Amino acid sequence: MSYRPLISLTTDFGYDDPFVGIMKGVIYTINPQVNIVDLTHNIHPHNIQEAAFTIGMNYSYFPKNSIHVVVVDPGVGSERRPLLVYADRHCFLGPDNGVFSYLYKNAPKDLQVIHITSEHLFLKKDSPTFQGRDVFAPCAAWLSTGVEVNKIGDTITDYHNVQLPCAVRQSALLMRGEVLFTDRFGNAITNITRTDMDDLRRGQGDKIKIALKGNEIRLSEYYSHTAGSGMSALINSSGLLEIFIYRGSAASEGNILPGDEVKVFLAR
Amino acid sequence: MSYRPLISLTTDFGYDDPFVGIMKGVIYTINPQVNIVDLTHNIHPHNIQEAAFTIGMNYSYFPKNSIHVVVVDPGVGSERRPLLVYADRHCFLGPDNGVFSYLYKNAPKDLQVIHITSEHLFLKKDSPTFQGRDVFAPCAAWLSTGVEVNKIGDTITDYHNVQLPCAVRQSALLMRGEVLFTDRFGNAITNITRTDMDDLRRGQGDKIKIALKGNEIRLSEYYSHTAGSGMSALINSSGLLEIFIYRGSAASEGNILPGDEVKVFLAR
Amino acid sequence: MSYRPLISLTTDFGYDDPFVGIMKGVIYTINPQVNIVDLTHNIHPHNIQEAAFTIGMNYSYFPKNSIHVVVVDPGVGSERRPLLVYADRHCFLGPDNGVFSYLYKNAPKDLQVIHITSEHLFLKKDSPTFQGRDVFAPCAAWLSTGVEVNKIGDTITDYHNVQLPCAVRQSALLMRGEVLFTDRFGNAITNITRTDMDDLRRGQGDKIKIALKGNEIRLSEYYSHTAGSGMSALINSSGLLEIFIYRGSAASEGNILPGDEVKVFLAR
Repeated sequence: MSYRPLISLTTDFGYDDPFVGIMKGVIYTINPQVNIVDLTHNIHPHNIQEAAFTIGMNYSYFPKNSIHVVVVDPGVGSERRPLLVYADRHCFLGPDNGVFSYLYKNAPKDLQVIHITSEHLFLKKDSPTFQGRDVFAPCAAWLSTGVEVNKIGDTITDYHNVQLPCAVRQSALLMRGEVLFTDRFGNAITNITRTDMDDLRRGQGDKIKIALKGNEIRLSEYYSHTAGSGMSALINSSGLLEIFIYRGSAASEGNILPGDEVKVFLAR
Repeated sequence: MSYRPLISLTTDFGYDDPFVGIMKGVIYTINPQVNIVDLTHNIHPHNIQEAAFTIGMNYSYFPKNSIHVVVVDPGVGSERRPLLVYADRHCFLGPDNGVFSYLYKNAPKDLQVIHITSEHLFLKKDSPTFQGRDVFAPCAAWLSTGVEVNKIGDTITDYHNVQLPCAVRQSALLMRGEVLFTDRFGNAITNITRTDMDDLRRGQGDKIKIALKGNEIRLSEYYSHTAGSGMSALINSSGLLEIFIYRGSAASEGNILPGDEVKVFLAR
Repeated sequence: MSYRPLISLTTDFGYDDPFVGIMKGVIYTINPQVNIVDLTHNIHPHNIQEAAFTIGMNYSYFPKNSIHVVVVDPGVGSERRPLLVYADRHCFLGPDNGVFSYLYKNAPKDLQVIHITSEHLFLKKDSPTFQGRDVFAPCAAWLSTGVEVNKIGDTITDYHNVQLPCAVRQSALLMRGEVLFTDRFGNAITNITRTDMDDLRRGQGDKIKIALKGNEIRLSEYYSHTAGSGMSALINSSGLLEIFIYRGSAASEGNILPGDEVKVFLAR
């Protein structure tokens, strides 16, 4: 079975406007043999941190050598640089505004950050306001045809990083984290990882309690496990602590928002 | 022209979260030569009946040997089984919770229901909460590469069925049905079929009247046929009785909801 | 690298219903080797003018010989004709209701408008209400396999045109236009072009002022250029005057709607 390159797209462009379709037109004009996958286009407008988590936590489900285009770019048109990041045998293209901070933080051995300077690969543009179309889509398409990563620009080390909220071990008995997102089902995804949980309860079995906005929450194995028993938590499919209500919406019933504090206690 | 297999996706995952994109990443990792089509990802969360109608009424517009993944799965992680249904020369993958009830009801001669047990085809998983990613996407991709249906598990007969609402012939002059869905245009699609209508009016010409929430509705041929005359009905592109307002929304103007009763009378 | 044909889809079908997925199933049944791109499916229901602008302003980002299907079709089922428009080495398929008016207005030398009469290419249909599925999707797919444009029907000249709002030069110092759309970011896109602006300010440097609903607006180069300074304008990536608020929504903060008048003054 022959190889076909893959380009994924992550943006805050939504689905109402033709922006994403235009980027795909540009890509297929350069390389009709590529597979294109929408990771999501509903990143909240200009939310760089959400974009950083979304691509950083999910790129590994794509084939090695995939090219991931991330366009959440409030500074488009200004002097901020277009980047190519090579990490973990994947390529990432996007603005130098922190959208790749999750990758920088996890720093795979092969991490390389390149300022894209090969302007001959860009669409000739009259306007500086749509680099998704004029810079990132064509560069992704050219890379997918075999243009070499190292020929596209110069390695840099002063790239822009944004702080990503980490869970903090407050004491032997207490871990503090926060809600990162809520999803379509009203589940609240936190930044507390399976490893964080394991570290906390080492040797203490399952005597875990979770607190969020005055709710005392217990840990389950899967959603329907807790049928009818209100707000619950599990380690989700990304390895993160997630608060949910079975067949309900924790987010709306509990008025949960990104940034809300989550505490995990060892109950003695 | 060479063959390319097709995988369709029907879920309640929506378009805000990266769930669908992740499933596509998993599929393309296994088979980069497949075409992937989104049938819809806006099934109402956990609405198994809606999923059953959506895939059952529409799979036939896809090529023979297509693989249809249906993930509407409130019980994910529990003991409910993952299924492969083979029917009418199409493959269907999804949970054993009734999402394939429309297929069971129409029982094509080649119907075969298989409990998927070939766990070596699954993604190695830390979590039981995203079987779309860990079970159904990889199994669909492996099937598209030529893995045989019969090698994927064991035939079962005790699969889970949900009741799908049928229109009922109340008397020689009366048929009762209900609204199944309303669509983006505010059209209300019922469970009364073209055949139901033909049976009722056999030899009676067009003396049909339709009643819905106090509205008396007459039958048209197509939407603009009735320009300006309020609520109307037609047999729609799926062969179902549909209530509409030309360039208006029957659903919102008539406050119509799924489950509302629809009566069809023969007016003598 | 071998050729793969491309079909783009522009509709008012939205993303809730399976209509778009069904059209793709029909296309891939006929030609599994085609690339399909969604330009947008969120044209406002029945808004022919919006469809005309969307396809007319954006088709050129797709490869030559692309096939663009446009289904915004309130008159579906009536006598309005299905069309194939050939223009600028692209093919366009859709109803004869004005959705191609932007193409007619720009009248490329190779413009040819064909009434599709080759009914043997259509899906056998029981219903006249879904020509996207029964007429336009299969005709697009057959064209993508090499069926010749001239064999699909008869050239016509009496095709239906809708008026597209133009900017008007009111005096040496004043240009009047209007808001065409607002986008996801709350930017208001007008029908005043870069050329209109250049004509107005010929030799007058940058002494331009813009008025919209009582707001006096100045011209910027790009979005973040104006950080913190309220409503601004720029020439956007389509070459049109666009009103925006950096990291805000001009549409909602300024209560801007399509059709609102925009004036551009030369300030002496």
